[in-house]
Amino acid sequence: MDFITSYTDLIEKEIQSLAFPSSPETLYNPQRYILESNGKRIRPILVLMASGLCGGDTKTALPAAVAVELIHNFTLLHDDIMDQAESRRGKASVHIRWNVATAILAGDGMFTQAMLQLQRLPETVNYKLLNRVFLEGINHVCEGQALDMEFENRLDVTADEYLSMIAGKTAALIKASLQIGGIVAEAPEEVTKQLGELGSSLGIAFQIQDDLLDVVADPEKFGKKRGGDISEGKKTFLMVKTLDCCTAGEREWLAGKLSNKPLLQDDILEVIELYEKYGITESAQSLMNQYYERASNMLAGFEDSNYKRDLEQLITYLRKREF
Amino acid sequence: MDFITSYTDLIEKEIQSLAFPSSPETLYNPQRYILESNGKRIRPILVLMASGLCGGDTKTALPAAVAVELIHNFTLLHDDIMDQAESRRGKASVHIRWNVATAILAGDGMFTQAMLQLQRLPETVNYKLLNRVFLEGINHVCEGQALDMEFENRLDVTADEYLSMIAGKTAALIKASLQIGGIVAEAPEEVTKQLGELGSSLGIAFQIQDDLLDVVADPEKFGKKRGGDISEGKKTFLMVKTLDCCTAGEREWLAGKLSNKPLLQDDILEVIELYEKYGITESAQSLMNQYYERASNMLAGFEDSNYKRDLEQLITYLRKREF
Repeated sequence: MDFITSYTDLIEKEIQSLAFPSSPETLYNPQRYILESNGKRIRPILVLMASGLCGGDTKTALPAAVAVELIHNFTLLHDDIMDQAESRRGKASVHIRWNVATAILAGDGMFTQAMLQLQRLPETVNYKLLNRVFLEGINHVCEGQALDMEFENRLDVTADEYLSMIAGKTAALIKASLQIGGIVAEAPEEVTKQLGELGSSLGIAFQIQDDLLDVVADPEKFGKKRGGDISEGKKTFLMVKTLDCCTAGEREWLAGKLSNKPLLQDDILEVIELYEKYGITESAQSLMNQYYERASNMLAGFEDSNYKRDLEQLITYLRKREF
Repeated sequence: MDFITSYTDLIEKEIQSLAFPSSPETLYNPQRYILESNGKRIRPILVLMASGLCGGDTKTALPAAVAVELIHNFTLLHDDIMDQAESRRGKASVHIRWNVATAILAGDGMFTQAMLQLQRLPETVNYKLLNRVFLEGINHVCEGQALDMEFENRLDVTADEYLSMIAGKTAALIKASLQIGGIVAEAPEEVTKQLGELGSSLGIAFQIQDDLLDVVADPEKFGKKRGGDISEGKKTFLMVKTLDCCTAGEREWLAGKLSNKPLLQDDILEVIELYEKYGITESAQSLMNQYYERASNMLAGFEDSNYKRDLEQLITYLRKREF
């Protein structure tokens, strides 16, 4: 993890320098609280690496990196309400620690603060283009979240629909992070487009892996209970594929369980047995690998540099992650 | 109301031309639903009038006007959840018609769409300045909303604190609307500043009036139940002033009632009697008039034009409103 320390050091320092006013506490304390919980800072790191990859100065890109991290945290604040998630990174979620109203408002405030960060970039940066790419990315995240909600009551979600959902919900902000890095470094449009494709593949791989880890990870390392997604009846890649290929009887049984959430421990284990019976974890693994490969291949087209090697290492690190 | 028809016609047409995608329905249907409910469109009208006042072309300012209306509706979506308001403009609130998660997400989507609208303005407009003023306005709205929430459990809110709360919650977006109109018309900084002061005074007057109408309006015209704010224990100007000047015994009685919301009909009437006893509605009226005067005086400094006369009429119309 040494290779990312230089990036995270810069990012943490920049986040600490965000001088949120002390009052109103109801608005700013929850923003400080969620920013201080130990996120992996993957997205701002990607902004800095993409900027470096395009010959930009890493420090110059910092406001954009922080903007992306603020947007990520804004989505977490609101998602945790929508998903009724009681904890996040080992701490109580904001809507639990405070209340739903405070979490909604703090999220709105973070969205605003994120967009304001972009004002701090140099005049030479194409501010309008940067805003467009960022906002379209955020809207794509909203679309993905909406699809995820719609899938909740459906048993016939296809693998393609699933992929289009995570392309928004998870991958759109990772895609935007890389594009934004390119735009800040004033890279040509074609290069920014390639960065976007790299980011999209990386984000899709990352989400399929998340779905997988829910079942195969060591709960202690992953920080979440095994089968949490199953318990909540989430339409993960594993669930979607299983519903598609299991017998009518199994499908009926699954439908019954999914309509009566949360699933109990015995049922979760039975679902995992179904995954094993149909080789679903292997097919998830294989799809995940395809997307990681695609990301690596996109990166291979860039000129050699320290940033390129760092991004290669980051992709390898993410691919091997067990949490 | 003839004098505003030319503005609202343009605005309604522009809103109808917003081509929200048909899918995901969960994201876009609630956005369409709230935009189609009959809002007064005061804020976008102000954008157009301010632009005209500064010599700008009204049609050119339309994307900015729609952006402000989208932000206003975004705040309504989220505020209705926070305030547990079940209806809005005679229709079920989005979080009631759908659910809380959908209303949060639709609000986030509208925020994003609002910011994207600004991309459609001509290249000559100072896009960066426009974004800054807009975003700072939105953040000020969030601060006001946070203060309002903090006031809920306090009995010692001062009139100054109340004014600073509504300067954010209600007036900040009205202020931003006028500033934005000026910026789109490429008005000098000094003029935009004057427009901001005009808007801030107008917004504060508007909110004090809203507080007043809760008590004095004909419920049929106002569209809300008489004493709704009292029932919810809101720290309106009237309540804040009364808590400040009533006897210790009355204060204790009020404190008891406010800690046990919603207040019942008999208690609401008793609170209104307190307002009458201490001449609170008169002092609210007088403060409201001061702010309306201040707005009119700011406007008087502008060169004569049709837009100026329209804005004068709008201020008069708002001042006389009974709903």
